[in-house]
Amino acid sequence: MSAFSDIDKLAISTLRLLSVDQVEKANSGHPGAPLGLAPAAHVIWRQMRMNPKQPDWINRDRFVLSNGHSVALLYSLLHLFGYDYSIEDLKQFRQYGSKCPGHPESDSPGIDITTGPLGQGVSNAVGLAIAQANLAATYNKPDYTLSDSFTYVFLGDGCLQEGVSSEASSLAGHLQLGNLICFYDDNQITIDGNTNVSFTEDVCMRYEAYGWEVLHVENGNEDLDAILNALEQAKKSKDKPTLIKMTTTIGYGSLNAGSHSVHGSPLKPDDVKQLKKKFGFNPDESFVVPQEVYDFYNKTVIQPGMKACEEWHKTFEGYCSTYPELGSELKRRLAYELPEGWEKALPTFTPKDSAVATRKLSEGVLQAIHSYLPELMGGSADLTSSNLTRWKEAVDFQPPSTGLGDYSGKYIRYGVREHGMGAIMNGIAAFGAGYRPYGGTFLNFVSYASGAVRLSALSGHPVIWVATHDSIGLGEDGPTHQPIETLAHFRAMPNMQVWRPADGNEVSAAYLASLTKKSTPSIIALSRQNLPQLEGSSIEKASKGGYVLQDVANADITLVSTGSEVSISVDAAKVLAKKNIKARVVSLPDFYTFDQQSEEYQLSVFPDGAPIMSIEVLATSGWAKYAHESFGLDRFGASGKASDLFKAFEFTPEGIAKRAEKTVAFYKNQQVISPLHKPF
Amino acid sequence: MSAFSDIDKLAISTLRLLSVDQVEKANSGHPGAPLGLAPAAHVIWRQMRMNPKQPDWINRDRFVLSNGHSVALLYSLLHLFGYDYSIEDLKQFRQYGSKCPGHPESDSPGIDITTGPLGQGVSNAVGLAIAQANLAATYNKPDYTLSDSFTYVFLGDGCLQEGVSSEASSLAGHLQLGNLICFYDDNQITIDGNTNVSFTEDVCMRYEAYGWEVLHVENGNEDLDAILNALEQAKKSKDKPTLIKMTTTIGYGSLNAGSHSVHGSPLKPDDVKQLKKKFGFNPDESFVVPQEVYDFYNKTVIQPGMKACEEWHKTFEGYCSTYPELGSELKRRLAYELPEGWEKALPTFTPKDSAVATRKLSEGVLQAIHSYLPELMGGSADLTSSNLTRWKEAVDFQPPSTGLGDYSGKYIRYGVREHGMGAIMNGIAAFGAGYRPYGGTFLNFVSYASGAVRLSALSGHPVIWVATHDSIGLGEDGPTHQPIETLAHFRAMPNMQVWRPADGNEVSAAYLASLTKKSTPSIIALSRQNLPQLEGSSIEKASKGGYVLQDVANADITLVSTGSEVSISVDAAKVLAKKNIKARVVSLPDFYTFDQQSEEYQLSVFPDGAPIMSIEVLATSGWAKYAHESFGLDRFGASGKASDLFKAFEFTPEGIAKRAEKTVAFYKNQQVISPLHKPF
Repeated sequence: MSAFSDIDKLAISTLRLLSVDQVEKANSGHPGAPLGLAPAAHVIWRQMRMNPKQPDWINRDRFVLSNGHSVALLYSLLHLFGYDYSIEDLKQFRQYGSKCPGHPESDSPGIDITTGPLGQGVSNAVGLAIAQANLAATYNKPDYTLSDSFTYVFLGDGCLQEGVSSEASSLAGHLQLGNLICFYDDNQITIDGNTNVSFTEDVCMRYEAYGWEVLHVENGNEDLDAILNALEQAKKSKDKPTLIKMTTTIGYGSLNAGSHSVHGSPLKPDDVKQLKKKFGFNPDESFVVPQEVYDFYNKTVIQPGMKACEEWHKTFEGYCSTYPELGSELKRRLAYELPEGWEKALPTFTPKDSAVATRKLSEGVLQAIHSYLPELMGGSADLTSSNLTRWKEAVDFQPPSTGLGDYSGKYIRYGVREHGMGAIMNGIAAFGAGYRPYGGTFLNFVSYASGAVRLSALSGHPVIWVATHDSIGLGEDGPTHQPIETLAHFRAMPNMQVWRPADGNEVSAAYLASLTKKSTPSIIALSRQNLPQLEGSSIEKASKGGYVLQDVANADITLVSTGSEVSISVDAAKVLAKKNIKARVVSLPDFYTFDQQSEEYQLSVFPDGAPIMSIEVLATSGWAKYAHESFGLDRFGASGKASDLFKAFEFTPEGIAKRAEKTVAFYKNQQVISPLHKPF
Repeated sequence: MSAFSDIDKLAISTLRLLSVDQVEKANSGHPGAPLGLAPAAHVIWRQMRMNPKQPDWINRDRFVLSNGHSVALLYSLLHLFGYDYSIEDLKQFRQYGSKCPGHPESDSPGIDITTGPLGQGVSNAVGLAIAQANLAATYNKPDYTLSDSFTYVFLGDGCLQEGVSSEASSLAGHLQLGNLICFYDDNQITIDGNTNVSFTEDVCMRYEAYGWEVLHVENGNEDLDAILNALEQAKKSKDKPTLIKMTTTIGYGSLNAGSHSVHGSPLKPDDVKQLKKKFGFNPDESFVVPQEVYDFYNKTVIQPGMKACEEWHKTFEGYCSTYPELGSELKRRLAYELPEGWEKALPTFTPKDSAVATRKLSEGVLQAIHSYLPELMGGSADLTSSNLTRWKEAVDFQPPSTGLGDYSGKYIRYGVREHGMGAIMNGIAAFGAGYRPYGGTFLNFVSYASGAVRLSALSGHPVIWVATHDSIGLGEDGPTHQPIETLAHFRAMPNMQVWRPADGNEVSAAYLASLTKKSTPSIIALSRQNLPQLEGSSIEKASKGGYVLQDVANADITLVSTGSEVSISVDAAKVLAKKNIKARVVSLPDFYTFDQQSEEYQLSVFPDGAPIMSIEVLATSGWAKYAHESFGLDRFGASGKASDLFKAFEFTPEGIAKRAEKTVAFYKNQQVISPLHKPF
C-alpha cells in the first residue's frame, strides 16, 4: 500500500505550478528542474525536522540545493512550509531588492547555504555533515541527544561534472558520513543538450568507488513510494553517505518535457496553460495554493517541527544542568560568541626573540589558542608538515573504525583537495554552533579553490586560509609554486581579509582579526623563511591593518610593505639614512582592516607631503591605492635558493633604497598629496 | 623468459642514483618518487619514439610527469636519452638560472609540458591526446600515416585527489582516447603520511566508471616484464584510455623506503652511501653513468628514434606531393604561422550597424574565421548556447561510434568542467601543429580554472577564454554568477591578455590580438547585453589595447572605460558637455597590449593636464595605473534586471557625469600629471 494519497499529489502539483509561475512572472529563470524535482522535494520535506519560526535551530535537518538554478522550487517550499516568504515575495522572484534572488542566497530566511556555482552545494553539504558528526560526538551523551540531524542535497549532472564535488565526495566516503543523503537528479539534460555529448561515465559506480551507498529510483517523476523507500534506506546507512540516483524528466508535464529548452527559459504561455490543466488547476490563475495543502504541511511538518524544537530546548536545559561546563560552552557557541579573554593566549614577541618563519609562528598561535576555542576545526590539503596547521595534541577527525581518530577530533586530513577543502569549510561554517574552520595549503594553491573562496566572501563565512609559502621566498620549488598575482586577486574580492604578517605580533593580530570577524573570511599569507621580530610592532597596532612601524620627522619618503619585505624595508631605511634620506616605514598587513579605520587614522599612516613607495615581492596591482610608486614582481618567479632569488630581483636593502632614491628625486619639486585623498 | 637483462637493471640503477645525486647536490628536492618510478620510466622510455636532436618532432611520443616533483628523474632520463642536458646541468638542479628548475618547465629542452601543481599534468595529457587524435583524423590518409603517437603519463596519489584530474579523466573516457596511457604511482604515501588518512576510495573502480581500461602491476619496483606487458596491453586498447596502477615503494632502496620522510627532502649521506652500495655503485662517487648505459639507450632508442624521424620527414615530403593542399596547410601549421590574409575575414562595423551583445559578435568572428584557421579547436563548458562558441557548420570532436561527430571535428563538448577545460586547452596548445584552443564559460567561472589559467600564462600557451556574461549586466542570475574581482585577478597575472571589447570592431581586434600572439593566453570578456557600435572605433585602433575614442581640445577630464561602460561613458561626456565640462573618452580594451605600446603613444592616450577617471562595473583594483580616480563596483552584485542594476549602482550617463564633476573639481587647482609617469 502506498504511503501517499491525493493530498500528496495536490501538494506536488502546487509546488510545480508555484515554481513555474515565479519564472513566468519574472520572465527569467529555470522551470525545468523544479517540474522534475517537486515529487522528491515533497517526499523529503514531508519528513524533515524544521522549525520555520526558528530557522537557525541547530538540530534542524539541512537542505542544500546544489543545483541552485532550481531555486524557484525552494522558494515554493519555503512559502508552503511556513517560512517568511509571502506569495507577494514569490512574485518578486529575480527582481532587484527582492527576497527571492535568482539563486539561493544564505541571507534569505531558511536558506542554509548559498548555491548556484555548480558543484559547490554538495561539497558544502559534506562540511555540514562533518560539523554535525563533530557536534554530536562532542556534546551528545548517553542520556542526551543534542544533535542527530541529516543533511539532504539535491544535485544535478552539472554538480557531478565539477571537480570540486569529486574531491568532496571522495573525502565524504572516506569519512563515512552516514548523515549525508544526496538526491541526484538524473534528467539526462544539460545546457548543451543530452548528457551523452560529454557525460557518459557510470556515476553510480564512481560513487561506489568513493565508498558511498548508491541507490536508484527509476521513476522519480511519479513513484513517491520508491523515493521514500530509498530515503529510509539511506537513513539506515550509518557509516556511508548515500547517493540516490533519481531518474526524472526535466520539465515534467511541459510540452517540451525532456528537452534542454525547458532548462533555463520560461515556458510559453500556452504550455503553462496546458500544464495547469494537466495538474487539475485553473489555467487562467497563477500563484494558487489550495488551502488543504497549507493545512497538510502545517499538520504533518510545521507543527511537529515546532514541537520537536521546543522539546529540544527543554532537553538542552536539562543537559545544561547535568553537564554545566559543556552546556555553557555550547550555549556560548550557539550565541556565536568567543570565550572571554581567549585573546590573552595569543603569543607576543619583542625584538629580542629569535627570527622565525611566520608559518611557524602561526603554528604557535594555533597551539596557544586551541584549548580555548573548541569551535576551531582545522586541517590541511595534505601539507600538514609544511603548513604547520596541527597542534600537538590534536585528534584527527576520522571514523573511529579507522583507528586514526574519531568524530570528536578537530583536525581534518583533507588530502590534496584545495577546492574541496574550501567548499567543505564553507559548509562547516554554515552549520552554526560557532564552528570556525581553517585550512592550510600553499598560498599559490588557494587559487585552485577560487570558486569556494568567492562564496566564503559572498556568503560571509569567516573561514581562515593558512596560506604558507607566500612568495618566491619558498625558493627551489620554483615558479609553478610561487604566488605572484594571488594577493592582488583576493584583495580585489569584496569582504575578504588578506593578511600578510611580518612577524610574531602581526601573526597574532592576523588571527585575532580573523577570529573576531563574524562574517568576513581571511587568507593569512605566511612565509616559509625565517623573519626577525620587529622593533615597533605590536598586536594592538597591527590590529588596525596598517601602522607606522618606524617614524621620522620631516620624512623624505614613506616605505610601506608587508610580510617578509617589512624587515628588508627597515634595513633599506638605514641605507637611505646614510645618504641623508629620511624614510618612514609602514607595515600594512591587511588592506581590508586598514580601510575600516577612521580617515584621520589612515591619513596619519599615509600623510601628505612625501611620496609613498610600496615594497612587496608580488604583483604591484592594487598598491596604487596607498602608494605613489610600487616596487614589486610583475613577472613569474624562478627556481633557486630564496636568498639568491631575493638578490636577483633586488629585494634587498640596497635594491629598495635605489628605487626609493629615484622616487624621492621624481617627486622633489612637486606638491605631494596622499593617495588616500579622493574626489569621491 | 624476461624481455630484460642486466643492462636494464644497470640503467635503472643509474636513473635512480643520478636522480638522488641531483637532490643531494641541491640539498633540496624529492628523492622518493624517482627511486620508486625509475623501473617504469626505463620500460616506457625504452620503447618511446623520440628524436633528442629534434625535440619538437610532431610525431614523437609525449611524456608527461604529472607528479612534477619527481623532476630529477626526468632530467636523468633526458640526459641519458641524448637531450641537451649535461652532467654539469644536472649538478645545477634547483639553482637560480639553471636549465634544471625544481619542477618541469616547458621552456627547457625535451619537456613537453610544465607540471608541478598537482592534477594538471594528467589533464594536460588529455589535451595532448585530443590533439593527436584530431591531427591523425585530419591529415592521415590510407597511404600516409603522419600521426600515430602516444601520450604517456606518470601521476601520483595527489594528482588523483585533485578535482581537475577527475574532470579531465571523465571526459577522456567519454572521448575514448586510446592513445593515452597513464601510470599511477600507487606508493600509498603523501606528505600527510599514509594515504589511508584521506584517500581510501577504489581508484581502479573509479576509472572503470569513467570508461577507462584499468590494469594493475603488483610489483612496480622490480617486475619489469609486468610493466611491459601492461604497457603493451594498453597500446592495444584502441578505444579506451588506460590507467595502469603500479604499486611501488616510495624511496625504494633507501633506509626510509615506504615512509613520507623520503618524499620531499634529501636523503641522509649514510643512506645515499648504502643505496649506492646496494645498487652496485661506488658509494663515494656521484653523478656516475656507466658507458654501457649510454650505449644501450643510444642503440635501442636514440638511433632508432632519429631514423624514425628521418623517415617521417620523407613520408611527409611524399604526402605533400600527393596531397599538396593538406600538405602545405600542415607545413604552415608546423611552422606555427597563420595563413596569410586570414585577418581580412574579421568583421568590421560602423555606428549605423545595430547594437549587438559582444558575445554574439564573438560568435560572428568565429563564424567568419573558422574556415581560414583549421588549427582553431574550440568548445564550451556546457554553455554553448550562452557563450555562442560554436560556428554553424562545426562538427563535434566525438568518438565516431557515438554518431555525434568524429575525431576530425573541431568542437569539444567539455561538459560542466571549467578547470578540466583549461588544463586540456593547455595540452592541446602544447601538442604543437599550431593548435589554437578556445573555450567558453561565464567570466565568473574562469576563476574555477585559475590553476590552469596560471599555467597557460607561465608556459606561454596562447589559449583563448571566451568569457561571456562579463558583469552585473548578466542580470537575474545574481551575485553568484556576476564577476567583480575577476578582471583585477587576471590583469595582475603576468603574460596574460584580458580583453573587454566595447563593440564589434573591438571584438575583432581582441581575436586578432589573441590569435597573433604566439605565447600569451587571452581572456576575452564579453557582454550578455546588447551594446551599440561606437563612433570612432576600429580594429586598427583597438589593436593597440587602448585608444582615444573621442577627443576634445583642452579637455577638463578623460573618461577611460572598457566593454559595456564605454558607450555609457560616451553619453556621460554629452551630459558633461551640457555643463560645459569637456571630456575625452578613451576605450582601453586590454591593459597588456596597451602596456606594450611606445611611451609616446601611451602618453598621447593618457596625457598630463587633466584628471583621468576610469569607469568599469567591476572591482576598481588595478585601475590606478592609468587613472587618478576610479568608478567601479567594489561590492558583490545583485539579482535583478540588468537595466535595474545599472541604475541602482549608478552606472548611467548621469551617475558617471556626477562623479566626473567631482573629479574635475577635486583636481581644479592642482598640477595634474599622468599616472603613466613613474620614478622607475
